[in-house]
Amino acid sequence: MNTTIEMMPSYVQEKWWVPEGSGGTEALDASTGEVLGRVSTEGLDLSAAVHYGRTTGQAELGKLTLHQRALKLRELATYLNGRREELYEISARTGATRGDSMVDIDGGIGVLFTYSSKGRRELPNSNVIVDGPLEVLSKDGSFAGEHIYTRIPGVAVQINAFNFPVWGMLEKFAPAFIAGVPTVVKPATPSMELAVAGVRMMVESGILPPGSLQLLSGPARSILDALDYRDMVSFTGSASTANLLRAHPNVAAGGVRFNAETDSLNAAILGPDAVPGTPEFDAFIRSVVTEMTVKAGQKCTAVRRAIVPEQLKPAVIEAIGARLAGRVVVGDPRTEGVTMGALASLDQLSSVRAAVDTMLHSGGTLAWGTLDAPDVGSAGGGAFMSPVLLDWADPDSPAVHTLEAFGPVCGVLGFSMHDGGASEAVRLAALGAGSLVATVCTNDPDFARSVVTGIAGHHGRVLMLNREDARSSTGHGSPVPHLVHGGPGRAGGGEELGGIRSVMHHMQRTAIQGSPNMLTAVTGVWHAGADRVVAGDPEYGGMEGAVHPFRKSLAELRIGDAFASGLRQVTLADITAFAQSTGDTFYAHTDPVAAQKNPFFPGIVAHGYLLVSWAAGLFVEPAPGPVLANYGLENLRFLTPVAPGDSIRVTLTAKQISPRVTDDYGEVCWDTVLHNQNGDIVASYDVLTLVEKENTLYP
Amino acid sequence: MNTTIEMMPSYVQEKWWVPEGSGGTEALDASTGEVLGRVSTEGLDLSAAVHYGRTTGQAELGKLTLHQRALKLRELATYLNGRREELYEISARTGATRGDSMVDIDGGIGVLFTYSSKGRRELPNSNVIVDGPLEVLSKDGSFAGEHIYTRIPGVAVQINAFNFPVWGMLEKFAPAFIAGVPTVVKPATPSMELAVAGVRMMVESGILPPGSLQLLSGPARSILDALDYRDMVSFTGSASTANLLRAHPNVAAGGVRFNAETDSLNAAILGPDAVPGTPEFDAFIRSVVTEMTVKAGQKCTAVRRAIVPEQLKPAVIEAIGARLAGRVVVGDPRTEGVTMGALASLDQLSSVRAAVDTMLHSGGTLAWGTLDAPDVGSAGGGAFMSPVLLDWADPDSPAVHTLEAFGPVCGVLGFSMHDGGASEAVRLAALGAGSLVATVCTNDPDFARSVVTGIAGHHGRVLMLNREDARSSTGHGSPVPHLVHGGPGRAGGGEELGGIRSVMHHMQRTAIQGSPNMLTAVTGVWHAGADRVVAGDPEYGGMEGAVHPFRKSLAELRIGDAFASGLRQVTLADITAFAQSTGDTFYAHTDPVAAQKNPFFPGIVAHGYLLVSWAAGLFVEPAPGPVLANYGLENLRFLTPVAPGDSIRVTLTAKQISPRVTDDYGEVCWDTVLHNQNGDIVASYDVLTLVEKENTLYP
Repeated sequence: MNTTIEMMPSYVQEKWWVPEGSGGTEALDASTGEVLGRVSTEGLDLSAAVHYGRTTGQAELGKLTLHQRALKLRELATYLNGRREELYEISARTGATRGDSMVDIDGGIGVLFTYSSKGRRELPNSNVIVDGPLEVLSKDGSFAGEHIYTRIPGVAVQINAFNFPVWGMLEKFAPAFIAGVPTVVKPATPSMELAVAGVRMMVESGILPPGSLQLLSGPARSILDALDYRDMVSFTGSASTANLLRAHPNVAAGGVRFNAETDSLNAAILGPDAVPGTPEFDAFIRSVVTEMTVKAGQKCTAVRRAIVPEQLKPAVIEAIGARLAGRVVVGDPRTEGVTMGALASLDQLSSVRAAVDTMLHSGGTLAWGTLDAPDVGSAGGGAFMSPVLLDWADPDSPAVHTLEAFGPVCGVLGFSMHDGGASEAVRLAALGAGSLVATVCTNDPDFARSVVTGIAGHHGRVLMLNREDARSSTGHGSPVPHLVHGGPGRAGGGEELGGIRSVMHHMQRTAIQGSPNMLTAVTGVWHAGADRVVAGDPEYGGMEGAVHPFRKSLAELRIGDAFASGLRQVTLADITAFAQSTGDTFYAHTDPVAAQKNPFFPGIVAHGYLLVSWAAGLFVEPAPGPVLANYGLENLRFLTPVAPGDSIRVTLTAKQISPRVTDDYGEVCWDTVLHNQNGDIVASYDVLTLVEKENTLYP
Repeated sequence: MNTTIEMMPSYVQEKWWVPEGSGGTEALDASTGEVLGRVSTEGLDLSAAVHYGRTTGQAELGKLTLHQRALKLRELATYLNGRREELYEISARTGATRGDSMVDIDGGIGVLFTYSSKGRRELPNSNVIVDGPLEVLSKDGSFAGEHIYTRIPGVAVQINAFNFPVWGMLEKFAPAFIAGVPTVVKPATPSMELAVAGVRMMVESGILPPGSLQLLSGPARSILDALDYRDMVSFTGSASTANLLRAHPNVAAGGVRFNAETDSLNAAILGPDAVPGTPEFDAFIRSVVTEMTVKAGQKCTAVRRAIVPEQLKPAVIEAIGARLAGRVVVGDPRTEGVTMGALASLDQLSSVRAAVDTMLHSGGTLAWGTLDAPDVGSAGGGAFMSPVLLDWADPDSPAVHTLEAFGPVCGVLGFSMHDGGASEAVRLAALGAGSLVATVCTNDPDFARSVVTGIAGHHGRVLMLNREDARSSTGHGSPVPHLVHGGPGRAGGGEELGGIRSVMHHMQRTAIQGSPNMLTAVTGVWHAGADRVVAGDPEYGGMEGAVHPFRKSLAELRIGDAFASGLRQVTLADITAFAQSTGDTFYAHTDPVAAQKNPFFPGIVAHGYLLVSWAAGLFVEPAPGPVLANYGLENLRFLTPVAPGDSIRVTLTAKQISPRVTDDYGEVCWDTVLHNQNGDIVASYDVLTLVEKENTLYP
């Protein structure tokens, strides 16, 4: 049917590489057992690949800013989108239904789009990310500290699981790429063909800089011999493999960063309010059946334990069984009407069957399904299995909390209603010893709060399902790029995705200390106390010949360019007029007796809004120019009240300049400080503006 | 001279415990060799201590909020401050000078004060910390996600180094305590007496809840047998011990969180501009000598490698030697005039001497000092050593980048000026394979930027020293509680301190997903789309009988309490008047032709400041009441321009309520949204107010 690939090629140092000889491991079609190819890295110089990433890869990626790299991800996503059908065809050979393939392929491309957009919206257009506020460390302000993130100086080795070859590859690649860290990807053997096809497209796109992506199509454990504290390993797969890798001397004692995401015994918890007939009961049943059967239950996030009020257990078992009977058709995913495909291999099938067998001897009873081979018509050679629902009489049975059947298998446990049930539900869920995700299905906010805060310390993600989001929810089993994926304990103790959080996992956080001028030099962000070029009132720092910074395009503007106004006095008449025109007649601006009683005010004071409005009047350069709009304000604090007779003046300093990669303008953030006639700080804030790159619109 | 403590007691389950028999290890006075006591945990049930922390400790700490725990740290700091002299007396027996003791004892108490203040200023007054912005995950807004931090459900085992027994204990205890995680502390044997005295005071203070602090005065490696993924180990000490602990099965495969801070080969880098005669040269020499000799060089942050332009190496060596000769007096720290005390033990002394000996056979030559015993008068039995400066002819000698002499020893390396010197300085610094801290001493911003961004990925902290901060700097060797302490690779790969960052290390980050109502229930923060009780205009949601939320004290106010105004029209006359009164005559508000050319505006538009001022007029309840002041604004964004003839209305919703533990009022953050007559969002922001706990001032 398809051309059989004899030996899966690796891609290292910009070259496709195939091992000599005919050794290696076979990759098989999950439904037909047909040999799709063989994998081997025998003879490949893995340390040369690491060296190439650390040198050429780091150098080439380092020529781009965070925004430029993020933008390349969008180009790549668009390119892959255009070649999706090729990937779908290969995906079907991994046992995936069309729906499964969409999750994998479209989902993976979606991760690229999300990261591209988040990278440009939430990160600066540079290569240094400032983390958190400045900490002033000396009384005179001449010494301060803060934190920066810069990329780790090595490579990211990404070892993926077989179940989502495209999504799994792209969700690790995207954050590494934005961070500027070269990737060496190692896909899993059963779905290697699809991963290789994906990498081939990425290479053919011509979008990626040299050294930013290399591929190992075969065993790669020995690449750890070449890694050190500069590098990172991101692993998805079984806990036992994760522990093997973690025991490697370069990880255990050599400082290699290691992030693991492993399967876990995820729970779905039903609230006592969610009795049959409620929308929550129905949503729960739908979710459990979906999570049992999507990808034939071969998902690290699948529901393995349905934890329900003991009085609702019979109804839950009956409803799950009915839905399985009515909805699930097992067979070759390329056949019309099939809703659940094969397991990834016959090995997987026998290992799942063995796990269920052990459970049946450890307190579980078969509530629905069979271990006999299902009838799948002509597709007889594949790794097919019926969904299996187990009933656990004793919810504390160790087997249900420790054994994992990585297939369409789920157990139902009842919790006692002692103390309203929440503490028992939490206790049982925690027996999983660390999970990727749990669902809490209830419409009772108190039950939700108790359970969620109780289990959060044991989980990477918790989904709350009720009538309000049952239809709109992205589902228990689906990690979304915006939120972290990973969990403590059994789930591997790692963290992926979570928007720019995973970009940060590819960076080192470093505290930097120094004078405002030096902190400014390193971060590219102006710091209070650093040098300025000040236009405006000579009495407040205005320099001869300095130009108002609003007259400068991004091409001319530099951080530290500033404007200082003179003083303007605020009278009681001004305050009264402002109160009348705006309608803000709060007593502190209108009633001297009541105002004086207020512990924060000396008597009547000017409106904070009057102060910022006047400040704009003091700093603005009204004629048309490169400053296009004031689109917002941040961190406004009123620090000293202004009474009638007081005066204010404003100093405005270009703090951060972020030209957009794709527009004719960019953001400028202005440090803004209001002083009174005594030099006290009245208010401080950041003014956010859009400024043209060149003086084009109003030359 | 002092009462000898026979066997150092442990403190577990609220009881002091002493082993039977006379076994254990001896702790000696560093200067006199006198036996101070013996340490042993033989017969102590360590798993019972862990269980006690996980149950009683978690339960008791969980009764308090983050702010309440932070406040207890202030009480504790005040209490310890009053008993400092007792600690100083014991500290002298560890070989510490008065100055060394101040760093340890006052520094440790200072960490408690800083954490108390940061905990209350930067964390919510609850037990759930929201991390980052909301991510809307469905088109209709009914499903969204975000991240929360909740404490880990186990204990924090804190294994400390001998050099800072008080500071080391408190800098680990403070963040664990605020997070709500019980501590089990294990001090180092040589300074055990001081640590035990500190714990005794903390217990005697009566401030700490049961189970929040336990002490193991003796070997504690086997406590790891009792730990799992719920727990955390924070270690400070040698890399070899860190690796031993990391290899424990419960760490390597059991998910115990492990944070290590180990000694590293820290560098001080001199810029080519910093020639003799410049303030930077002098600051560099002062810093290197200080870091060589404070605590007799037994600091994980001490400068081990002075990396200087090769042409400046002779001058640097001469100046360091001259300063060592003129300033350093070795002897018993209790003797007048002594500036450098003994090493912690005779074992330490011989190990440092051995390391220097190896260096002298590996390319280092003695540039200043001696390995002979220094003349210290009567204090003959102690672990005294002269400072030693080594000259390395070949800056690439492996010995200087891999061997550590944990004493008053430093090597000088020259870098070539190829490419301006920065890249060579970066390359040599990185040969340390991961360090806690580096100093970059230069007054050249370009050299600083190149070196700092080049070495940041290899370092936990970088200090920039120049003429501006040479006097005010807290110094290369001093971690400050505001900034992270720790580093990659050889430095252990961990992170401590850094303000609330280390509180977070004691918490699990969990993604939560659900409807706005459920997210509100779990976080205690109102989410857009969640239920409200709306006062105000019935046309925009105002409900019969609802009270304006500005009339409610914190005792009455609930999140979701809201006010909705009616519409108010903006005319051209209003805009013109506002421009005239404020002085903000920006062309977009005054010049219809130029305004129309602006890509973001339809023509003349209202000032953003007019809109927020009017909004205040629309939502304010002017009569005196529990709302005392508007102290700021956050996240203001202008989204749709308002043209003459458009109207605006405002909706204000109580989003977060934070009563202060120590005041009669607290903060209320109001979600504020402006709409126009078409229902488009004109602006959104958070209004920050101070509100009375009870209606007291204006009843």
